[in-house]
Amino acid sequence: MRILGVDPGSNATGVGLIERRGSRVTHVHHAVLRPPSGAELSVRLDFFHRELAGVVDEFGPEVAVVERVFLASNPRSALVLGQARGALLACLGSAGVRVAEIAAREAKKAITGAGGADKQQMQTMVTRLLGLEKVPATDAADALALALSHAQAGALADLPIKGRRRNHRRALTEVLAGRSPRTTP
Amino acid sequence: MRILGVDPGSNATGVGLIERRGSRVTHVHHAVLRPPSGAELSVRLDFFHRELAGVVDEFGPEVAVVERVFLASNPRSALVLGQARGALLACLGSAGVRVAEIAAREAKKAITGAGGADKQQMQTMVTRLLGLEKVPATDAADALALALSHAQAGALADLPIKGRRRNHRRALTEVLAGRSPRTTP
Repeated sequence: MRILGVDPGSNATGVGLIERRGSRVTHVHHAVLRPPSGAELSVRLDFFHRELAGVVDEFGPEVAVVERVFLASNPRSALVLGQARGALLACLGSAGVRVAEIAAREAKKAITGAGGADKQQMQTMVTRLLGLEKVPATDAADALALALSHAQAGALADLPIKGRRRNHRRALTEVLAGRSPRTTP
Repeated sequence: MRILGVDPGSNATGVGLIERRGSRVTHVHHAVLRPPSGAELSVRLDFFHRELAGVVDEFGPEVAVVERVFLASNPRSALVLGQARGALLACLGSAGVRVAEIAAREAKKAITGAGGADKQQMQTMVTRLLGLEKVPATDAADALALALSHAQAGALADLPIKGRRRNHRRALTEVLAGRSPRTTP
């Protein structure tokens, strides 16, 4: 199962794709979509729509995980973020990709163990968990973290009922234990 | 010149098209786009993207006028409105339609003379100004009002410099004086 993480932002949107086969998770792709800075708003939003459509076409994810917004800091930034989300979600709707939402806090907790983890901690952990050779940009790392959190939730759902009592952090370690051939000695 | 007014809303988006030839303005089309109520957010946003694309394809507007958002009431409603705007603006960007923004208050003032006009006043004035046989739904009326306000601004721009000193309300009356054959005796 291919899982696409999407971290929407008006100036830069992170995308990160992983593949989960049973208990194995591997890195597939990540990128930061940056619309031309001087362009009109409508052109910038269409850029997100088109670029994400390209990623979906190329990699065919079964599910997309988008950061859930709880409380934006103010109406202006909520509007601006909403516009980027709207263009990206419309693209996923158009492609028929199922959308799940995960709060940033949940993703941080799943990846680093701390809901208040900073950007750098997330980058470090995502790099380690996926056995990447290079640290991804923060937006891409956040997108990969969303996808990883979803993979973890899926792995938990696959466990027998008794096993679900174990905590999430442990489950993620298990999911990632046999993830990438590159990191297996 | 065909002008498309768009009044974005998450449950219903109004669209209204008028044609301006010199000092003549005629009604072309109006509708309210309503996504299937039970559908996923991404499907609803794609609905707006697709439906607006259909309107643009069919009527080929040169410019789209979207309601400008100044201060949404709270971050949650700003996010929700932003998402609808994002899907719609991405569609306009994709179609290469130029986008202008007009504040609701400006449109209300241009159409009724009062920035605080209510929905019903707007419906009544739009119906009268365009010589429509039936009163359009509020969202469609608001969209037509945005297009009319833009037509008025365009008509002002066409006037000789001296003429621009006259107030907007007067100019709109002039623009609409010879608008639709139906309303000319």
